[in-house]
Amino acid sequence: MTRTIDLVADVGEAFGAYSLGDDVHLLDLLTSANVACGFHAGDPQIMTKTVAACRTRGVAVGAHPGFNDLRGFGRRAIAMSTDEVRTDVLYQLGALQGIAQAQAVELSHVTPHGSLGNLSVTDEGYARGVAEAVAAFDPNLPIVTQEGQLSKLARSEGLRVAITAMADRSYNPDGSLVSRKIKGAVIHDEDVVVERAVRMVTDGTVVAHDGSLMEIDVDTVLLHGDNAEAVEAAGRIRDALSAAGVGFASLATVLSEKNSV
Amino acid sequence: MTRTIDLVADVGEAFGAYSLGDDVHLLDLLTSANVACGFHAGDPQIMTKTVAACRTRGVAVGAHPGFNDLRGFGRRAIAMSTDEVRTDVLYQLGALQGIAQAQAVELSHVTPHGSLGNLSVTDEGYARGVAEAVAAFDPNLPIVTQEGQLSKLARSEGLRVAITAMADRSYNPDGSLVSRKIKGAVIHDEDVVVERAVRMVTDGTVVAHDGSLMEIDVDTVLLHGDNAEAVEAAGRIRDALSAAGVGFASLATVLSEKNSV
Amino acid sequence: MTRTIDLVADVGEAFGAYSLGDDVHLLDLLTSANVACGFHAGDPQIMTKTVAACRTRGVAVGAHPGFNDLRGFGRRAIAMSTDEVRTDVLYQLGALQGIAQAQAVELSHVTPHGSLGNLSVTDEGYARGVAEAVAAFDPNLPIVTQEGQLSKLARSEGLRVAITAMADRSYNPDGSLVSRKIKGAVIHDEDVVVERAVRMVTDGTVVAHDGSLMEIDVDTVLLHGDNAEAVEAAGRIRDALSAAGVGFASLATVLSEKNSV
Amino acid sequence: MTRTIDLVADVGEAFGAYSLGDDVHLLDLLTSANVACGFHAGDPQIMTKTVAACRTRGVAVGAHPGFNDLRGFGRRAIAMSTDEVRTDVLYQLGALQGIAQAQAVELSHVTPHGSLGNLSVTDEGYARGVAEAVAAFDPNLPIVTQEGQLSKLARSEGLRVAITAMADRSYNPDGSLVSRKIKGAVIHDEDVVVERAVRMVTDGTVVAHDGSLMEIDVDTVLLHGDNAEAVEAAGRIRDALSAAGVGFASLATVLSEKNSV
Repeated sequence: MTRTIDLVADVGEAFGAYSLGDDVHLLDLLTSANVACGFHAGDPQIMTKTVAACRTRGVAVGAHPGFNDLRGFGRRAIAMSTDEVRTDVLYQLGALQGIAQAQAVELSHVTPHGSLGNLSVTDEGYARGVAEAVAAFDPNLPIVTQEGQLSKLARSEGLRVAITAMADRSYNPDGSLVSRKIKGAVIHDEDVVVERAVRMVTDGTVVAHDGSLMEIDVDTVLLHGDNAEAVEAAGRIRDALSAAGVGFASLATVLSEKNSV
Repeated sequence: MTRTIDLVADVGEAFGAYSLGDDVHLLDLLTSANVACGFHAGDPQIMTKTVAACRTRGVAVGAHPGFNDLRGFGRRAIAMSTDEVRTDVLYQLGALQGIAQAQAVELSHVTPHGSLGNLSVTDEGYARGVAEAVAAFDPNLPIVTQEGQLSKLARSEGLRVAITAMADRSYNPDGSLVSRKIKGAVIHDEDVVVERAVRMVTDGTVVAHDGSLMEIDVDTVLLHGDNAEAVEAAGRIRDALSAAGVGFASLATVLSEKNSV
Repeated sequence: MTRTIDLVADVGEAFGAYSLGDDVHLLDLLTSANVACGFHAGDPQIMTKTVAACRTRGVAVGAHPGFNDLRGFGRRAIAMSTDEVRTDVLYQLGALQGIAQAQAVELSHVTPHGSLGNLSVTDEGYARGVAEAVAAFDPNLPIVTQEGQLSKLARSEGLRVAITAMADRSYNPDGSLVSRKIKGAVIHDEDVVVERAVRMVTDGTVVAHDGSLMEIDVDTVLLHGDNAEAVEAAGRIRDALSAAGVGFASLATVLSEKNSV
Repeated sequence: MTRTIDLVADVGEAFGAYSLGDDVHLLDLLTSANVACGFHAGDPQIMTKTVAACRTRGVAVGAHPGFNDLRGFGRRAIAMSTDEVRTDVLYQLGALQGIAQAQAVELSHVTPHGSLGNLSVTDEGYARGVAEAVAAFDPNLPIVTQEGQLSKLARSEGLRVAITAMADRSYNPDGSLVSRKIKGAVIHDEDVVVERAVRMVTDGTVVAHDGSLMEIDVDTVLLHGDNAEAVEAAGRIRDALSAAGVGFASLATVLSEKNSV
């Protein structure tokens, strides 16, 4: 049986006079995009251009809300109440939707960025903030995350959940990511990354950090586009998946195919 | 013939630890609210609470987008391109809508705040930015403004326009406001303000700064609630209108009654 | 033997259009002020006015650097590297000094605000950031804190340390504050607070949260001025100290008297 | 007689995760640097690194205060009172000085950035804000600008003024810059730019926009370093000046030589 998968990356992370990443080339490889919503990166003009660039290419537009910390690019943990998380996420979802609906584009998914993403996986309070925001905003909007607090909570509340394959990150046997503070958390050998991506998608397995083989049921593969080399590496992953008979489609298709099996 | 009018005020202008205005008492007097959208004032939690307070009281929720200048409370002119204005307004409209739809509340109108509001009346570029944002976001959303560039442009593009009565401000004979830099621009005598409000609504006229009697067709009366005295003064205006046989209803009703005449 | 003590409070916490606290009345009670530096509160105009108000009254001007989080008023923990803390504190020290030197005022001390203050007491990385900033900026500038990581580190590096009496907070037997999450952390009975303040200053002791009597060597008493009641309570503490024969002088005098004993 | 000139450029314009310009290579060409102070660009860590890079190379550190508008990179005009300008500049001067004094570096000059710089040349209120800030902060700190309101006002108040040669910009016959809105305001032909730079320095003249030859007495030449090409072009100007017998020294030396003539 062939498999269809979504290819996604973080885009729209420029701000004002500052550019970041090579969105133009990266977008050609994707079926979905995680678009920064102006808190950790992005501004209304950049969001507008990014949505337009996605629209032109038929790339699905997902929201990528983060902490309101441009200085730290959303990567610094901020102690926030569940209500602060919930309302910050609602605000960002709405802001991107406002810009998207002006171009007749609907949001395809939501995936929390950086430290908000990490804390949503490990901390019940942050997970609840994200899940409650999505449930109140649009309960049909899929939440893209790794296995953890958010995926558990979202499923228990009847929300739709999609799991990201992070082929360049080591996994713990429970499906969570190995902390970046631990040696080997990030895999730098490009051949290994490509091979892991293919195996996660076609075989549904990945070798965990402790050497054990674990099952993983992924719906989308996260690519990177920080610079020209990253975009090239992203292209290699796409090509290898394609060569392995994998088809590409946006999350909506991937999730509906799954449910119809 | 009796008249129905909307009563509106700026609310939700607190930020983080900072409070501003007496929203709780003010909202009891209103049929509509201009809710700050996080750029010149307001934050996601305050917006959430403000929408909830409006909902409880049946007060319509309008968007009050402003310049992204908390320090200047949106009152300092910022030189912006039409595209910057347009996308900043779209972002804020979306953000408030995201928070509102989480409470099953629909936006009732949009009215630009402070310096953005003033420039929209006098400068074609800013007016275009606001009008294009509304046209792309939701062409049925009424724009609340004074007569000027924005009202002209919005009508010419088929958008809905409502005019605010600012009973404590002096008018030029063309319907624009007398600049605050000119003596007499703001009317401090409360009795005069009340009388002007009633006359604008019931008679459709106001005495302009040059002494001439001008016609003005208002749909909503702007009240203030910066402190306890202001809220009391707002109450006096409401009472005087009521005593003059004026009924109160949100903008949607006022505008539809007008069109059905 | 009579005792001389410094009386200090957080001031200059307004921002733009937002006011906070009753600085005008509070300053009349103080010998020193902790002036917000624009990151968690305060802006250049407010800092300027606050320094001028201190100067007029002969109140010493101390720096009150905090996290760059106006939304959270510097009360939310932010995960920061020691270098981020160090450079953020240097920036704020310099900014306040720039404004002070324009009025021929010298900085008298530095005390980290809110979550930065708390983390400096409990976390070695934050403590090091603050201490290194002060050591590089001006090693003679006293650091005002509670006993903990920062006081230890600062003393070991030859920096000057002053200890604050927080009469309305419960202490652990090691001199650290009982967490606000624990019942009884904040003492609301004003009579008890006044009595504790007098005892800490005149007797050098305080009853800890576990009922044990602990010694505490304080140099300054922290007063509050969030509103009219708080300012009145601050006045009661000052009066009670005065009635107990305590004299008031800024930190420089208190610290030099101590060293000359 | 040979001439000595300062070579300066804007540096330290990165922010958080965002980089901008090629400071590392540019700094090797300079005798002075205009260091962003955290309002329009720069953050405390970047300011720290930039000052360190200047110190290592013996490049003088000047302050480059701008509008508090990271989104607009300080290039958007903001309507501000003289007191707002004055205190914003004081804050930024202090912040950079705080970071510099931690490295035993003294500030060498101040030059307002972007729109603040432009408005200081054309508008008396902004000019007064900048001049008053410098007068109160350190009246010996040279102000670097073009001929206009700020240079006039600063001289009349006994402040030190240095004039920048902007070889790639067209001049009006009165020494002010031709507005960027006018065709020909920016000179793109690199050979012409180099020739103009040499002539301004060695001959004290430049051909104005109207074809007339005007005298100009410059103390520093502004180079650019936005990217590799710009840095190369900057190197060509330096080489051409050197070939014409011009020596390079920081502003302090240039200004003292001038006064000793």
